[in-house]
Amino acid sequence: MSINIITISREFGSGGRTIAEIVAKKTGYSFYDKELIARAAERTGFAESFVQEHGEKLGSRFFSVPYASNTFNGMTTEDYLWSMQRNIILELAEEGPCVIVGRCSDYILKDRKDAFHVFIHADPADRAERIINQYGVKTQDPAKAVADEDKNRRKNYRYYTDREWGAVNNYTVSLNSSVFGIEGTAEMILNMVRSLNELPDQE
Amino acid sequence: MSINIITISREFGSGGRTIAEIVAKKTGYSFYDKELIARAAERTGFAESFVQEHGEKLGSRFFSVPYASNTFNGMTTEDYLWSMQRNIILELAEEGPCVIVGRCSDYILKDRKDAFHVFIHADPADRAERIINQYGVKTQDPAKAVADEDKNRRKNYRYYTDREWGAVNNYTVSLNSSVFGIEGTAEMILNMVRSLNELPDQE
Repeated sequence: MSINIITISREFGSGGRTIAEIVAKKTGYSFYDKELIARAAERTGFAESFVQEHGEKLGSRFFSVPYASNTFNGMTTEDYLWSMQRNIILELAEEGPCVIVGRCSDYILKDRKDAFHVFIHADPADRAERIINQYGVKTQDPAKAVADEDKNRRKNYRYYTDREWGAVNNYTVSLNSSVFGIEGTAEMILNMVRSLNELPDQE
Repeated sequence: MSINIITISREFGSGGRTIAEIVAKKTGYSFYDKELIARAAERTGFAESFVQEHGEKLGSRFFSVPYASNTFNGMTTEDYLWSMQRNIILELAEEGPCVIVGRCSDYILKDRKDAFHVFIHADPADRAERIINQYGVKTQDPAKAVADEDKNRRKNYRYYTDREWGAVNNYTVSLNSSVFGIEGTAEMILNMVRSLNELPDQE
């Protein structure tokens, strides 16, 4: 078996992006996060900051009007961005071994037999602390900021995939980074991917 | 850090019980599955087969009458069994290092800092095949049997814990046994527990 694609979905503040970066560095796989945003920005014409802000979040129109009415109002910005991002993720996966962060990549690449899907979560107190001290988020209420961002990701994921974000079945493995630490979690993922890469092909 | 308790929750047909047995054998920890059933049977006066059948399943009364009316009808058999099982799990956890299978043990022992909580899932086709060929279940529709049993466990878990069965946050790790195989999944768990046991204590 050969794992060529590693998708890393993550709770906000779990350190998942940093873990993905370490995994990419140690496997030598391409790391797609900023690159994905840059491509989506180029293809849509939106600013990179806009893509970053809206790429994992549904717009508010979803909650103010019934779903069906979208079809009368034309394609939404989010739907357009989703469609472009999805195509880019499928393209990147064809370009060679890679690590992709979030953006429903586990769902988009669910049929690739050579993909390994990870979900990183962490204890709420650690996440609240990390967004302040590591990510530099400015907020009076970090616990709420963390919960709000998770809510955005969950809604976005459910809307585009019809699956539950953070349900074990979507992922090959899930890990609590509070238990293993950031480096430790990356090490566990590397151990698992290496052990799969050593197995003989089944087909 | 020292991991003394490993709880293994599992989808029906995922091989989770076998994985738990391997983990117990290789760590030298006590393995609690039949032992737990025997103790619950002794304490409740119910037959072991009754405890096995009802220990992870809600009775149908829950769906035929409003919840509140239970309080007028006295304690249900399931509530009594839950209460006894919960006490036994807390006792077993005090008796020394152990591996406990299912029965909401992840929830019951969630506050133990020395507990490692695992959820095992697997691809639906593998699960359907396993319940026929390994567990000897007699059914014309193994896919339905698997889905029905998961539904029982999910309802039971939600009722007694107010959490979602199979949501990543409940578990230290989750693993897809279809990807790693039964022995391979046990090996991954052992690697993780060993690596945590080698870490210096944080407190």
